Amino acid sequence: MPFAHIEDKAAIETGSLLSPRFDERGLITAVAVDAASGRVLMVAAMNQEALARTIETGEAHYWSRSRQALWHKGATSGHTQKVVELRIDCDQDAVVLHVEAHGPGQCHVGYPSCFYRVVGIGGPAADARLTIVDAPSYDPDAVYGG
Amino acid sequence: MPFAHIEDKAAIETGSLLSPRFDERGLITAVAVDAASGRVLMVAAMNQEALARTIETGEAHYWSRSRQALWHKGATSGHTQKVVELRIDCDQDAVVLHVEAHGPGQCHVGYPSCFYRVVGIGGPAADARLTIVDAPSYDPDAVYGG
Repeated sequence: MPFAHIEDKAAIETGSLLSPRFDERGLITAVAVDAASGRVLMVAAMNQEALARTIETGEAHYWSRSRQALWHKGATSGHTQKVVELRIDCDQDAVVLHVEAHGPGQCHVGYPSCFYRVVGIGGPAADARLTIVDAPSYDPDAVYGG
Repeated sequence: MPFAHIEDKAAIETGSLLSPRFDERGLITAVAVDAASGRVLMVAAMNQEALARTIETGEAHYWSRSRQALWHKGATSGHTQKVVELRIDCDQDAVVLHVEAHGPGQCHVGYPSCFYRVVGIGGPAADARLTIVDAPSYDPDAVYGG
């Protein structure tokens, strides 16, 4: 258990002690933002180990819920994320990573960001449609082996 | 159940059908970004109803895990979020809302964003400390009644 555990609300919200609030699954939310463009690249989860390794190495680590394993982002693809700045929110259950992203894209589908689709708003939710608004930036089959 | 349910991976990742993947708690992750500055304002959760109302009204709605209730952001504080653009990620379990944020701050602690603290990196995780790097933007006691 590498992190302190505090219960005082004021200390959690405005103190200098890192006391991340992992949820019932042992996870916090992590948002990776491109440090240069400010664009949101991806949203993922971190468990204790992923957060600790990110802090200690300065390279983004996540918890892969699909693989149920620690995930050093870019270990397979080479698309690593060097953490320039790490921020935590008021209740310490989410972090934002400002990263220098390596490689042509950060999404496994082949785009610079995972958020390449816009959801149409203003009508019935059941009729909402998605539109791809970004251009692909690399061929994932060439990177991940198809 | 206002949303379609599809299982085909290619359709989820690159199709035009909105089929959000709510987790075992019935939630997806929502990241609110200031449309003007590009800054991450807050990270929250949405259940089906919150996402549907956000799409239909163009105002950000979340699911409050602490209150276990639908949360129309700003209903109490006046600090509403008008959604300028809504994006969804590759596996449809996270959304980014580009918003016009109303009011002097979007965090209940009194800051423009919930991410007003930087986590020191590069040393042992247990020794990591937080530094407040933003200035408060309003008095929460005056807004929420102290």
